Amino acid sequence: MEIKTEIITIGDEILIGQIVDTNSAWMAEKLNDAGISVYQITTISDNREHILKTVQAALDRVDIVLMTGGLGPTSDDITKKTLAEFFHSELVLNDKVLASVRKRLEERNIRLNDLIRGQAYVPDKCQAFVNEWGTAPGMWFETNGKVLVSMPGVPVEMKGIMVKYVIPGLKDKYRLPAILHRTLLTYGTFEAHLAGLLEDFEKNLPSNVKLAYLPSAGRVRLRLTAKGDNREELTLLLDRLEKEMMERVGEYVYGKNEDTLEQIIGELLRKNGKTLSTAESCTGGMVSHLITKVPGASDYYKGSVVSYANEVKTGELGVPEKEIITHGAVSREVVEQMAEGVSTRLKTDYAIAISGIAGPTGGTPEKPVGTVWISVKAPEKTVAQKFIFGFTRMENITRAAYTSLNMLRKVLLNESFH
Amino acid sequence: MEIKTEIITIGDEILIGQIVDTNSAWMAEKLNDAGISVYQITTISDNREHILKTVQAALDRVDIVLMTGGLGPTSDDITKKTLAEFFHSELVLNDKVLASVRKRLEERNIRLNDLIRGQAYVPDKCQAFVNEWGTAPGMWFETNGKVLVSMPGVPVEMKGIMVKYVIPGLKDKYRLPAILHRTLLTYGTFEAHLAGLLEDFEKNLPSNVKLAYLPSAGRVRLRLTAKGDNREELTLLLDRLEKEMMERVGEYVYGKNEDTLEQIIGELLRKNGKTLSTAESCTGGMVSHLITKVPGASDYYKGSVVSYANEVKTGELGVPEKEIITHGAVSREVVEQMAEGVSTRLKTDYAIAISGIAGPTGGTPEKPVGTVWISVKAPEKTVAQKFIFGFTRMENITRAAYTSLNMLRKVLLNESFH
Repeated sequence: MEIKTEIITIGDEILIGQIVDTNSAWMAEKLNDAGISVYQITTISDNREHILKTVQAALDRVDIVLMTGGLGPTSDDITKKTLAEFFHSELVLNDKVLASVRKRLEERNIRLNDLIRGQAYVPDKCQAFVNEWGTAPGMWFETNGKVLVSMPGVPVEMKGIMVKYVIPGLKDKYRLPAILHRTLLTYGTFEAHLAGLLEDFEKNLPSNVKLAYLPSAGRVRLRLTAKGDNREELTLLLDRLEKEMMERVGEYVYGKNEDTLEQIIGELLRKNGKTLSTAESCTGGMVSHLITKVPGASDYYKGSVVSYANEVKTGELGVPEKEIITHGAVSREVVEQMAEGVSTRLKTDYAIAISGIAGPTGGTPEKPVGTVWISVKAPEKTVAQKFIFGFTRMENITRAAYTSLNMLRKVLLNESFH
Repeated sequence: MEIKTEIITIGDEILIGQIVDTNSAWMAEKLNDAGISVYQITTISDNREHILKTVQAALDRVDIVLMTGGLGPTSDDITKKTLAEFFHSELVLNDKVLASVRKRLEERNIRLNDLIRGQAYVPDKCQAFVNEWGTAPGMWFETNGKVLVSMPGVPVEMKGIMVKYVIPGLKDKYRLPAILHRTLLTYGTFEAHLAGLLEDFEKNLPSNVKLAYLPSAGRVRLRLTAKGDNREELTLLLDRLEKEMMERVGEYVYGKNEDTLEQIIGELLRKNGKTLSTAESCTGGMVSHLITKVPGASDYYKGSVVSYANEVKTGELGVPEKEIITHGAVSREVVEQMAEGVSTRLKTDYAIAISGIAGPTGGTPEKPVGTVWISVKAPEKTVAQKFIFGFTRMENITRAAYTSLNMLRKVLLNESFH
């Protein structure tokens, strides 16, 4: 039987949009890895009635309720006393928690005051988890065979308690299935197109496997999720399904799982002992920024000339002025010369060059906003391709940057592209 | 009466922890700005029964339900047909939506297939919003005086529909209280330090005004939120409070509200008819990327040399090799020569140069990871300053980039800095 969880996050910061809820994503990932599905994530405010209603509804829906937040020492933090009310429980002093709180304060030369001392009072019907990373303890309640755990909202404290107590405790209590994921990362086509290519594959999937399409800015991730009792069997099943998918959509696949284009091209360059430079116009340094986010990029990346002004294209990259006058700065001729110019100047084996119209102004009927020429120079050849992205300025910049990395990847793999 | 909203996010990606729910935070912020409180955020899976139950529960709790996700063209996207079922509505072909979908496909040379055509079928009991940023339309339902809007989960599409249709529509429909924000943007000091300087100010705030501290990567935003019925009175009140805050923390303030450092330096340069170039080592193009995110940056920004390899510092920026050998690439001497080199080569009035150790490797006892030299070259002088950020690679890159923009801002304002 599938064990279902609900995550309840308590705190106004998320509801007013002041912070993004990264805790829930982290918890969901750890729970899924342990074979526990997350059925719902609910974010509510520090309000007694809202907490009581939400906890009751969650315990009606799922087997496990994991709560974070609202456990600070100040008066607006009401989770603990509200849970004591919900479970008809008394707050009693917990010596182990008090000792831990004392120790933390002593290490920091802070005096114990009543507010902090209050952290050591815990409902008598729960098991308390000492918080080594802060002062508020975790609290594990059981009721009618279901589990509710309350944890602090500070990420380092929540994560410490989850890893040390909650995940092991849930593994002890429940017989959990294995849940395995396999994600293929595609670039350069649309969700609907991939869905067409995979239609029959998807129809014939075994009932314990699901396929999801996850699109974002030119990229579509194809994620298989397999559930079962035997981890080894599931791995073999996913290996087989991955192979079948590759036969259908392999030409668009650039990597797997947590891979990024910038890491993949870095690994290909490093493996082949080759170097790279870039010449960027409309992307304004974003390609270079992506490449250098990867630790160790200096092994293969030498640098970039961001030629935002045309005079930099001529002066620093050696693009003849007449080419710019004849064809325009956004043209095959200019972008190829930019690629060749930067690879000559910076003495690299490969080069990427980009010239386009990011917008919102600068478009013409022949070259509308979103028109981008991208060139990749390899030792043997220089290629270039025109794209019309046609989104907002930031989308145009982002798509041009990632598209250029994907073009380089294909050249590095010695694939054709069109 | 307070108007309450619930945000419902549909999609397995969040429940398995693959992506963080940034949409809800963005929506919550915009709603709060418009005077609409967010009561609850609920994330659920693409499951018919779960969607039906959650929508019903939300409509029982709140006035406005805003849903995102589950509107793609593939079979796992069931939000639209489930909402049609919920509202006892038929899916009918919407000509305006179809025309918009056709236009998008034609621009991209993609053939209309049945899956994509399906996007133009819309429940007959809703008002459809044409999606200029994708293919799935937004859908506005009304029932018993309450509103439910369904939008795609792709951030650029959701944001477009929210700004163009949903927020204006809600403002039309409800009489909303005035909620005004005034945010002062500070750079270069700590939250606790600012809190000390503002302690008495905060204590004496009127009861309808709240002050929040929002720290992120070297920057602290100080946000005043005032609530009331009279917009003019609130504006005057915020004007007065802003002045009081400036008297206390003005030296750290670089802008207001939605200002960014990259916009501010752009405006200063444009106003003075001056030009800028950059020479980046450890930041790898991020400064250039930030500057060129601003539309119209080509008016004042000429370009960058990203000198990731030392040979690019010597070859392209003219830094004498012996300076690098004597002082190291991360030194006052080298970073000043980088700034002067790039401004000479690219013929600009001002230049920024950055050289540092982003990590995780490359640190030494004298120059640990996070050590960054930043130089700003102005027509009259070249200055440089050393920073030790000492965070992760991405934090080091980000802080170095923004710190360099703030240094340039101070130079442009002819302020001293130390």
